[in-house]
Order: sequence, then C-alpha cells, then structure tokens
Amino acid sequence: MDLRISPFASPSPAAAPFEIVERKGLGHPDTICDELAEELGRALSAFYLERFGRILHHNVDKGLLWGGAARPAFGGGEITAPIELFIAGRATAEAQGVTVPVDALALETTRRWLREHLPALDAERHVTVHTLIRPSSPDLVDLFMRRREDEAALANDTSYGVGYAPLDDLERAVLAIERRLNAPETKRAHPEIGTDVKVMGTRQGGALGVTVACALVGRHVADLADYFAKKARIAELALAAAREASALPVELQVNAADGATAESVYLTVTGTSAEAGDDGQVGRGNRVNGLITPYRPMSLEAAAGKNPVSHVGKLYNIAAGRIAQALVAEFAGVIEAYCVLASRIGQPVDAPAFIDLKVRTAEPREFEALRPRIEERVREELRSIGSLWRRVIAGEFRVC
Amino acid sequence: MDLRISPFASPSPAAAPFEIVERKGLGHPDTICDELAEELGRALSAFYLERFGRILHHNVDKGLLWGGAARPAFGGGEITAPIELFIAGRATAEAQGVTVPVDALALETTRRWLREHLPALDAERHVTVHTLIRPSSPDLVDLFMRRREDEAALANDTSYGVGYAPLDDLERAVLAIERRLNAPETKRAHPEIGTDVKVMGTRQGGALGVTVACALVGRHVADLADYFAKKARIAELALAAAREASALPVELQVNAADGATAESVYLTVTGTSAEAGDDGQVGRGNRVNGLITPYRPMSLEAAAGKNPVSHVGKLYNIAAGRIAQALVAEFAGVIEAYCVLASRIGQPVDAPAFIDLKVRTAEPREFEALRPRIEERVREELRSIGSLWRRVIAGEFRVC
Amino acid sequence: MDLRISPFASPSPAAAPFEIVERKGLGHPDTICDELAEELGRALSAFYLERFGRILHHNVDKGLLWGGAARPAFGGGEITAPIELFIAGRATAEAQGVTVPVDALALETTRRWLREHLPALDAERHVTVHTLIRPSSPDLVDLFMRRREDEAALANDTSYGVGYAPLDDLERAVLAIERRLNAPETKRAHPEIGTDVKVMGTRQGGALGVTVACALVGRHVADLADYFAKKARIAELALAAAREASALPVELQVNAADGATAESVYLTVTGTSAEAGDDGQVGRGNRVNGLITPYRPMSLEAAAGKNPVSHVGKLYNIAAGRIAQALVAEFAGVIEAYCVLASRIGQPVDAPAFIDLKVRTAEPREFEALRPRIEERVREELRSIGSLWRRVIAGEFRVC
Amino acid sequence: MDLRISPFASPSPAAAPFEIVERKGLGHPDTICDELAEELGRALSAFYLERFGRILHHNVDKGLLWGGAARPAFGGGEITAPIELFIAGRATAEAQGVTVPVDALALETTRRWLREHLPALDAERHVTVHTLIRPSSPDLVDLFMRRREDEAALANDTSYGVGYAPLDDLERAVLAIERRLNAPETKRAHPEIGTDVKVMGTRQGGALGVTVACALVGRHVADLADYFAKKARIAELALAAAREASALPVELQVNAADGATAESVYLTVTGTSAEAGDDGQVGRGNRVNGLITPYRPMSLEAAAGKNPVSHVGKLYNIAAGRIAQALVAEFAGVIEAYCVLASRIGQPVDAPAFIDLKVRTAEPREFEALRPRIEERVREELRSIGSLWRRVIAGEFRVC
Repeated sequence: MDLRISPFASPSPAAAPFEIVERKGLGHPDTICDELAEELGRALSAFYLERFGRILHHNVDKGLLWGGAARPAFGGGEITAPIELFIAGRATAEAQGVTVPVDALALETTRRWLREHLPALDAERHVTVHTLIRPSSPDLVDLFMRRREDEAALANDTSYGVGYAPLDDLERAVLAIERRLNAPETKRAHPEIGTDVKVMGTRQGGALGVTVACALVGRHVADLADYFAKKARIAELALAAAREASALPVELQVNAADGATAESVYLTVTGTSAEAGDDGQVGRGNRVNGLITPYRPMSLEAAAGKNPVSHVGKLYNIAAGRIAQALVAEFAGVIEAYCVLASRIGQPVDAPAFIDLKVRTAEPREFEALRPRIEERVREELRSIGSLWRRVIAGEFRVC
Repeated sequence: MDLRISPFASPSPAAAPFEIVERKGLGHPDTICDELAEELGRALSAFYLERFGRILHHNVDKGLLWGGAARPAFGGGEITAPIELFIAGRATAEAQGVTVPVDALALETTRRWLREHLPALDAERHVTVHTLIRPSSPDLVDLFMRRREDEAALANDTSYGVGYAPLDDLERAVLAIERRLNAPETKRAHPEIGTDVKVMGTRQGGALGVTVACALVGRHVADLADYFAKKARIAELALAAAREASALPVELQVNAADGATAESVYLTVTGTSAEAGDDGQVGRGNRVNGLITPYRPMSLEAAAGKNPVSHVGKLYNIAAGRIAQALVAEFAGVIEAYCVLASRIGQPVDAPAFIDLKVRTAEPREFEALRPRIEERVREELRSIGSLWRRVIAGEFRVC
Repeated sequence: MDLRISPFASPSPAAAPFEIVERKGLGHPDTICDELAEELGRALSAFYLERFGRILHHNVDKGLLWGGAARPAFGGGEITAPIELFIAGRATAEAQGVTVPVDALALETTRRWLREHLPALDAERHVTVHTLIRPSSPDLVDLFMRRREDEAALANDTSYGVGYAPLDDLERAVLAIERRLNAPETKRAHPEIGTDVKVMGTRQGGALGVTVACALVGRHVADLADYFAKKARIAELALAAAREASALPVELQVNAADGATAESVYLTVTGTSAEAGDDGQVGRGNRVNGLITPYRPMSLEAAAGKNPVSHVGKLYNIAAGRIAQALVAEFAGVIEAYCVLASRIGQPVDAPAFIDLKVRTAEPREFEALRPRIEERVREELRSIGSLWRRVIAGEFRVC
Repeated sequence: MDLRISPFASPSPAAAPFEIVERKGLGHPDTICDELAEELGRALSAFYLERFGRILHHNVDKGLLWGGAARPAFGGGEITAPIELFIAGRATAEAQGVTVPVDALALETTRRWLREHLPALDAERHVTVHTLIRPSSPDLVDLFMRRREDEAALANDTSYGVGYAPLDDLERAVLAIERRLNAPETKRAHPEIGTDVKVMGTRQGGALGVTVACALVGRHVADLADYFAKKARIAELALAAAREASALPVELQVNAADGATAESVYLTVTGTSAEAGDDGQVGRGNRVNGLITPYRPMSLEAAAGKNPVSHVGKLYNIAAGRIAQALVAEFAGVIEAYCVLASRIGQPVDAPAFIDLKVRTAEPREFEALRPRIEERVREELRSIGSLWRRVIAGEFRVC
C-alpha cells in the first residue's frame, strides 16, 4: 500500500476569486432517484443480514424517474400523467434455499419513502413503479456467501473515492439553505414549500450569491399575491439559514425566472418538478457530502444503491471523507485535508492500492511534526474500513 | 327497425344430452382484468358526470395481467416477482378546459379494488400497475359534448348483443358455487379459500359434474393434512351451494389435479394463480351474465371498460339479457327466451337494426296470443335503452 | 369415453330468419395479436423439436397491442407515437443444459411477421416490442421431457372444443371478402387497401347485408376524390368475392361511417387502425375457423400461442372442426355436423371425457344407417389426435 | 460580465505524485446511453432545422439501459433476455401544424446507431427500445419559435461549464488506448475485441499504470487458450497506443480479474457487458473531453441529448474546453489553462455571469504581457458562442 501524505500548498478553493457550489434538494428528481436506490440497498442489506447473517451481493444503483404531466393551479391543481419510476440493478434473489422478495421490497420501500418524504405527493395516485432487477449471478452469490465475517471484503473493481474537509463558507451556506427549507418543522409551518429545492451558490471574491429554485405547492397558495408573499417568506428563511452558516455577505434570489402571471411562476401540485417538467436518474446529483463542487475533486461514482461491503466506488468515497474530516476535527493544526483512496480489484478493501492525502496546516512548518500522528490516524481508519458497511446500513452516512 | 319474434321450437340446451358451463371466479386473472376495466370505466363515468354533466368518450376495455412469480408454502410463502397490470384504452383527457386525471383514477381504482376484493394479496408489495391510456381524439370528445341529454346516443359501430333467460340447472349451480366460495362471509370463516375459484360444469343426461379449481392461501394452511381437510370442507360448501341451486344430482371434485405432496397441491401465497402461473386479459372470461356457455349463443364482445352510452357491443349485451329476463319473469306462459339485438353504426341506440327474439312458451299454442304483449314489452325496453347507462354506471349490472 | 351421436333436428342457423357473422381481418389489432402469438408458439415449437426432439412446455397465448398515435394524410401522413406490443406467457427457457433464446425468438418472429404481412407499416420505426415471458416451472418442463414420443400427451385442463361444418352462405361470403381484400395479389394491384379489413355480415331472411370497414393507406391516395374512387373499387372487389361465395343477394357498404371531408374518412398511414384508434388482444377476435359466429356454438378459448400437444383448449377446437368437416365431406348423406369434445385433466388427449356429435342428414331416416360409419370415422380421428400437433406446427391449420 | 484571468500558480495535476484517469469505451453501458441520447438530440435538431429553420425545444438527456441476460460461450453463446433501453426526455412534438415523429426518430436512430457501432450485437433480436418522451410544454415551444435567428439564445438555467487544456500524459494514454481498441480497422483485424473497453489509468510518480477491462466476443474465440492468446494481443495493441501517446513508462494489465477457467474470463456474446452484468445511464460516464478526471475540475452535467442552443450546462462545458484549448494552442507561452463559465438564467448565452480563467505560462513573468491578448481571444470565443450549436449538431464535438 502506497500511503503518501503531502503538504497542501496550493490556494484553497475557498480563497480563490470564484467558486460554484450546488445542491439538489430532497424532492429534486435526481435526489429522489438517489434516495430510493439507497433506501432499497439498505432494505436488501437488512433482509440479507437477518436471514443469512451477512450482506449478500446487490447493486441497485441505476434508476430513472420519468416525469409526469400536471396542471398546477392556485388552491389545487391536478396530475394528468403519473410519474413513472424505473428501479434497476442486480440483487441476490435466492440463497440457501431462501427466496429474497426483491421486487416486493423495492415496491414497498419506494412507496414508503415517497409517503414519508414527499408529503404533497400522493404516492398511490401519482406514481407508477417498475422494478427492473435481475438476480445476481450464482458466482457472485457464492463469493459473498463464502466470505468470512471477520475479514475485509475484496474490492469489486479498480476504482477510487475522494473526500475533503472542512466545508467552506459557500458550501455550508448552500447545504444549510436546503436543509432549512426541507426541515420537517419548516414544512409543518409552511406546507406551501415544495420539496424540490435546488440551491445554486457562487462566490465572487468575498460575497456569496445564491439562487434558490423552490417549487411551491398550489394547494397552499391562494393566488398570485399570496405566491409572492410566500416566496418572500421563503427568501427570508433561506437567508437566515445562510447567515447562520456563514458570516460572508449573501445576495439571494428565489425563483429568479418567475414572471408576473400565474402561468410563469414556479407552482406545482406535488412540490416537485418531477410531476411535469423534469426527469431524474440515480447518480446525477449530489456527491456523498450532499454537494456538487466543481472546484473540488469529485468522483463520478454513484454511491446510492451500491453494496457497501465490497463496492469500493461507494465505500472509498465515504471513507475518504471520513479521513479528511477526522484529521481536521482532531488535529488543531490541520486546517484543510483532501484524501483520495484507490483500490485494486481483488485486493482486500482495507488495503487500498494507494492513499493520496494532502494536508494544509495552519503553520506550514508544523506539517512534518504532525505527519507521524496523521499517518497513525489514517491507518487506524483503514483498519476499520472493513466494517464501515455496518454504519452505512444503519443509515449513519447519507450518500446524497 | 326489424323486430321479429318467433317461437323457439328447437330443444333447449338444458334438455340436450350434454352441456358445458364455466365460470371464472373473482380472483381468476381474466376476471381481475374485467373487473378492473369496468371499475375504471365507472370511475371515469362518475368523473365525467360530475364535472361535465354527461358521460364523455372513453373505452378502456383492454388490459393485460402479467402473472408474477411466487414461492407458496404452508404457513406463509413469498412473492418473488410482482404481478404487473397493463391497463389500456382511450379516454377523454380534457374538455372545456378541465383536465381529467385519467391515470390517477386508473391507479387509484385499481389499487382500491385489489385491496377490497383480494384480501390475501398485498396490493402495494405484490402488484405493479402500468397505465396505457391515450387521450380520445378531439372528434370523439366533441361528438359526446354535443349530444343532447334527452337523446339516445348514436351507435358507435355495427355490432350486436345477445341474451337469454332463464339460467338452467347447470348454469345456476356453477354460478352459485363460485358466489358461495367467494362470498365475504365465507372468506371471513375460511380465509384459506383463495379468490381464484374456477368452476367447470358439465351435464351428461340428468347428472351434473362439477370440477372446482380453488387456490388455497398458504398462510392459513398448516400442512398437507390441513390442506386436505380444508379442501374437503371447500367441497362441502360447494356441494351445498349447488344443491340449493338445482335438484339434479351433482358429482363434484375440488382441485382434481392435486398430487400427494406439498409441491403438487394448489397452494398460493395470495389466493390467485396470477401470482405465478397465469396471465389474464380483459374480455377473455365470463360473459355479461357471469358465465361461459358454449351451448348458448354468445357474443365475443368484452363489455368491461366500454362506455355504456354509445358502445352497442356492451349496451346491447346487457339490454338483450334484460329483455329475455323480463319476458320470462313477467309472462307466466314464457318459459325460455333468446334475444339478439343488432345495431347499425350511426343510428340511435334505441333504434336497433334488428331484433331477433325467440320465445318458448309452455304451451306452443299460446305463442300467438302472447305475441302482441311481448312486442309491446320489448318496445318498452327499447325506449329505456338510451338511459340504461345510468344504471350501468350505478353498478346495477355486473359485466363479468 | 362417452361418445354420443345424435340427429340434429333443430333448424340450422342458416335457415333461421336472422344471422350475424363477423371476421376481423389480418391487420385488425386483435388479429395481429393472435397471429403474433401463434407465430411465436410455432417458432418455439420448431426450436424445441430441433434441439430436444420434442415440443416442450410453452403457453404464449396472452398479448396486448397498445395502439399508437398518427396523423394520416393524403399522399403520406406520419406516426407520432409507435404501436407498443406486449407479448406475454410462459415458455421453457432451459432444458438439458441448453438455453432457449425465448425473448430473441419473440422479437425476431414479431418483426418478421410484421414486415411480411403489414407492408405499409415500418416495423422498425412504428413498433416497440415488449417481451413478458417467464420461464415455465421446472415441474412442467420435466413433465414434457418425460413424455414418450409415441404416447398421446395428458390433457392440461378440464376444457373443451367446438366445431361445425359446413360454413353457410353468410359465413362463406364474409370469409371470402376479407381474404380477397387481403390477398397478396390484391395488395400488389391496390396498395391503397389497408390490412385492417373488418367484415360484419348479417342475413335477414334470404338477403345478405355486409358492412366492410377497410382502412386506406394515405400514401397511395391522392385526395378525397381519389379516396372515394378507390373505396368504390374496394366495394366492387368485395362484392365479386361475395358473389363467388354465395348465390344469395348481397347488399354491401364500405366504411359506412365516412363523412364528406378529409377528416371523416377512414384514412391511415399504415393500413391498420392499430396506429391510432384501437388496441388489440390475443383471443378477442376470430375463432379457429376464422369467424365470429354468435348463432353457432363457440368456445371462448384463445387458441393462438398455446402449445398444441397437451393444451386441449386449442387442440380440441381444431379437432372438433376437423371431425365435423370430415363427416360432411366424406358422407354424402350428412349435410351438417356439430362436434363438442370435452377433456378431463390428466387424461390422455386421445381419450376425451365425452364427445357430443350432432349430425343432420339430408334424409332424417338415413341417420341410423349412417351412425356406425360415423362412429368409426370419429374414432379414427381420435386415434390421430395425439399427433395432430405436428400438422399444427407445420402451419397446416390456421387459428384465427 | 465578470471576466477574471489569473495566473495558475498551483502545481498541475500532471506534476502531483498521484493521478487517476478513466475512460468508459464505446460499448460500455453508460457510453451507449450517452451516445444514443446525443444521436437522438442531433436527429431531432436536424428535423427541426429542416422543417422550421431553427432548433426547437428538446431535452432528451435521460436514459436507462437495463442489461439483459446471456450465456456466453467459446465459438458462440446466446442472449437469453434482451437489453432494454429506456429513452426519456421532452421534445417539441408539434409546431406550426407540423407533427414531429419523435418516437419514430428515437426508434430509428437507436437501432441505426446500435447496428453501426456495436457489430457483434443483433439490434433486432437482442434489444428492446422504450421511448419515454413527452411533448415540450407549449410555453417552451413558443419561446424557441420566437427567437431571432441572429440572436444568442437565453440561458435556460443558472449553471456552468468547465474545461481545461492540454491533456497530460496519463489522459492522452487512456484516451489513446480506448480509441485504438475501438477503431474500425482494429475491429476488422480483431473481431474478437468487444466494444466494451474500460480503461482505468493511474500515475504514481513518473510511472503510468493502466488496467484495461475488455470484453471478448465468444464467436471469435475458439477456447481458453485462444482467449489468452487474444488477450495478450490486446495488451500489445493497448501498450503500443499508450506509448505513442506518452513517453512515460507504462505497466498495463488486461482483464485483471480473469481466472483460469472458461467461467472466470471476460467472455461475452455481443462484446458488451450490457448483455448481462451491467446497466447504464446517460451522464454517468465520460465528460465532454472523453474522460473522467477526479483530479481536475469537472461538471456533473450530462451534455448528451441536451439542446445545444440554450442549455448552458451543455454549451458551456463545450465552450470552456474550446477556450482552454485555443489558448494553449495559439499562445506559445501558455502551457496550461482552466476555464469556468457560469450563466445566469434568462441572460443571453454569449454573456456569461462570470468567466474564471486560470492560465499557467511557461515563464510566470510572461503572464501580464499575455493577459490583454488572452482577454481579447476569450471575448472572440464568446462572440461565437451563440452559433456554436451549429457545429455541435454537425457532430464536430463529441460529448462523451
């Protein structure tokens, strides 16, 4: 294993003149796909664990949301063609004579998630679900059945994961705004706020600029005047969240493309653009830290729906983020960290092919003094990587 | 209009040496398709009536049930691939600026019907629904919008309907057996009796022979011995029902193909063979009188899901049955009646192209005396045919 | 086996005052479904025969054609949404370690049939095919593998088939008209004649009335005047065919619902209403003799796509027709015959549960003299019923 | 417009101790999806241009490839379940009374592309295509119809694009290897080389490590020995390509996970893992420069299938790459350039919200001297951005 720890001397993205950060909120079509894929992955894992004492092979990381058609209206509106969800992948469908109800689990977790997270959507009337999950090949089923409990699994591919810490001002602000608008308590007080909240943030010099696209739910908006009043309230909520997250000045706009007529504002029946304009897919939205950050290193790997035992494309993205976060949190001198973990197919997941760690210290000369402790800490994280999947399945880490 | 009433001189099917009658019960894949198509047709009609004050064009008389895959077991069992329902047709999707939520209605009525009628099936986990309903053409929408309330609609096709009365011994017995086994009170007392009850009856001379194929629900059957005990009880229930319906001797078998092992008996998870072995379609099962009667005149028209205003293939099958029943019920001398109604495309539905009525009187010589009253009665029924759709929508007539 | 042969004393439908007969032509959505199901059944049978030396279990008798959307126009027109075909059923997908390419066979035979039989349709651009065929259960695969070559298969169900001979005037006329309009030589001379030809015939007394609904292909029709000219030519062709088939007077109409404008005539892009208005299903159209005959005994069984070895619902419909035809053809005194064959599940197909044969002789008193020879002839047919499937697979019998 | 040009002082990824670069080749499931989406986008654009003189609204950037099931074998093999393609999005389906055959174009371009690019796949037997494309909203259709020919379109979103130049050694090597293995002349000489070639490259210090996963086509491989011989030849071809692209030492492995038995080597029927193991989606693979480069700035935007007129997420990724390439190509002193273009929704696409350009000069002190010429060159590129779509549609730029 090649572990290289180097000082990070380049300017931080947070210090550069420009920066762009984006988050697709809970009800965005791409996020819906990610959440449903991960939810199914966790349900399968729970089933496998209970029946077989171990996670069996599965990979349900593909999915398509085909947007419906709708007639939104103040005070109500109608869905005229349902959203169609296609959930695809492979999963162990039988082992040791036990049948795994893969499709039933998919249908059930999908409807439950939709009911619990998209309150303005009627999961029964507005959504059709298609399951496209083939049985895993017998070879893969055997491979997983033979694995010893106390061993790290073997990497399923030559792949990699990336992570960094800490989040900078823009990142914190973007994340905070979406979380505030989609918080259950916000929804209770403001049922007019849809779940499809997309936050696009830029920083030019020391000023943040944030554009929020936020679907409003027609049932809870009386008319155009009410729409604009409620939009103003959304801007206030978003601004307050941004200000708690960052001290930098913020300029914020909600639904920048709105016109002055009922037809040209962002009104929906269900709170998500999936009802009409937009399709979605797994893996096209937020990375495992909840953000899209073109100025930071990113992996294109879709983590959602993959098995967390041997799928290094998922496991290493989570682990790399954890390593970076641990260093920043635990070493007072470390102010920024980037981590890349690369696997070699067939090697144990706790023995990456290489680790590329870049660390910025508050005082450049401190770096060498910290290096041995950093290395020790990284090795400790690696030792636990073979059991990280337990925490993934428990829902401790979000993946989108 | 050519109304011909003739004495029916041929021997009745009930008097012939052989006879065959069949009924596909409520949970049979073909019947499920019929019921769901009709349920959707009625839901659409109700919506149209409420919003537009009239029935608008629709024809949702096609549908496919793609059977799933299952692992039945005593005490439980599992569905390993869901049943997939494809509901197809045309329906007015917009009129006078009002959008009709066709797909949402289809999804909702389907799931509701499944929940209410197939108790052992989990409509959420075990069924996927695909809606394949295109908007009706603007011409057809206009045609229906222009119709005056008090006018009979124009026939949509050159078609026909057939009906007869009364049911004979074999027909009554077959119908009674299925209804008894699928009665709510039977299901409460015997939750092990599945809804997929297929009754095949034959008469050879004066003896009835009935074969009942009846799915048992694994969750409510402990083991093989229990299966046979419960099957014996089903045979008793069926026999009792047959005896109430007919005085002829009955020989009855339940699940004639059963073997002596757990694998070779008719056990299911959900009470219907749709879970695994069998697909279904609209219009492939019972005729509008609830039976399949190869020795009687039959129309191949699928009534389920058709609009009852102008679709003569549906309307005339219902009307022809009503005419035959009325004559038998109301004229003491009439002991058997057959009615064929034929339409001409574009003519009012209350003016058939011809009516072919055959009537058997207890005393042949009575026929001529009865003819004028019969004719009067038939004309009376015809006058009400233009508003028969109201009673169809109200659910007064079953179509399968 | 209960073989009962009785004299048929009732008046023949051909002698009754009214009669209705219908045929859905080659390009009708229901007939397309039937033809494709049967074509796939034959392709599977051929594959099984070649690889395994026997027919293996299959039953592909369900299918749905979801009509597309089109903009027909004189001189051309466009398909704006493709026709979608869903082909459903069960088929042996593996035996003796050999994989059967079920889906590939389905896709290939479907496209080939469409190309060969519906010339105005572009099978690649205008049609989407979905295969919904699950593997046969291992039990059924075994059952078919164990069957001895020289044995009759065992009936798969308690079912029946019906047949009669000869065709009467109306039946011959209806059949002849559709065959003429869809004959390859007609299509070469008149490419404007679509394949979706529906013929509805009635007889009132001694006069035939025929309504032909015949799609015209826009590409080969210049304008409205040309449409009416070509429609007149179609009427001539149809009338000529009817007159060759029957000496009775015929009144014939083509596209009775046509209006006087381009929008209100029966113009299509592809020659079939499947492109826009109409959906179709397997088993909803013609019976195995090519006709729908409400005045004759009919079975509702869909023959298309079923295996012809053990599926008595198919086999007995074909065999019953053959028996009736043989008696009429071979015995000068027999002028009409009806045959019903009923099976008992699990019994050899060449030993029906009963045979109900009704025979009309030119001279009633001849009946008894003919009875022994008729019985002998029927037994001969029964002996060959176990190998009838070879001729079905060879395409010798049509099923729709 | 905020145009900021700054010297790029950080070390280049090419100079860092580690680097990772990946390319998913032509027959990889994700690339197939991208190519088909882009192909359809171009076909729609061509249709719109020809009929309407302008590009109309469309966005077909979603798609799912559901992998099939296969039995690969030396000398042949079989597909047992077809690949199913779901092509989703929105497209103008009608304008000025002209119907756009959206589905027919989708079916046709899909099958043609598959035939032309995946020679070992039988597009007719092995693939089912589902089109899920809804009509664009009338508002969007109008917006596009009203645009003046000589004007830049308005940005459809607040989004961004990123690009850089030049490719470094590892990037050139990875790209060259895939292109060599998928070159038509390679395929002619080596029909055994599948199209599903995935190249994962790493650089550790000054040495390149490349893992090639390359499907072999069973029909052209005689046995296990032949497989290994052909695999060795593939390694030679790949190595030669890498050496032409870079002078750095290369260690290369083909199909690293191969075992020693016929079951454990990478054999396929069709040359792509889509036949069995793997699903794919639009936008999950290569970025517009053909690579996945976690150490470089990347956008997550899927360019394939988007309209190139107003969809800044596509347009700016292409334009940013062109700007970076132009600077490196045209200014001798510029050795590396990064460009980020950000839009503001509703602003003309040739007036980005900001441009963040980082330029490394061979001599740091040259930077200020070059700045005015660089700025001039960037402004020139921006002026042409409004007509860049013509070259996109002409196929001049690849997007995956």
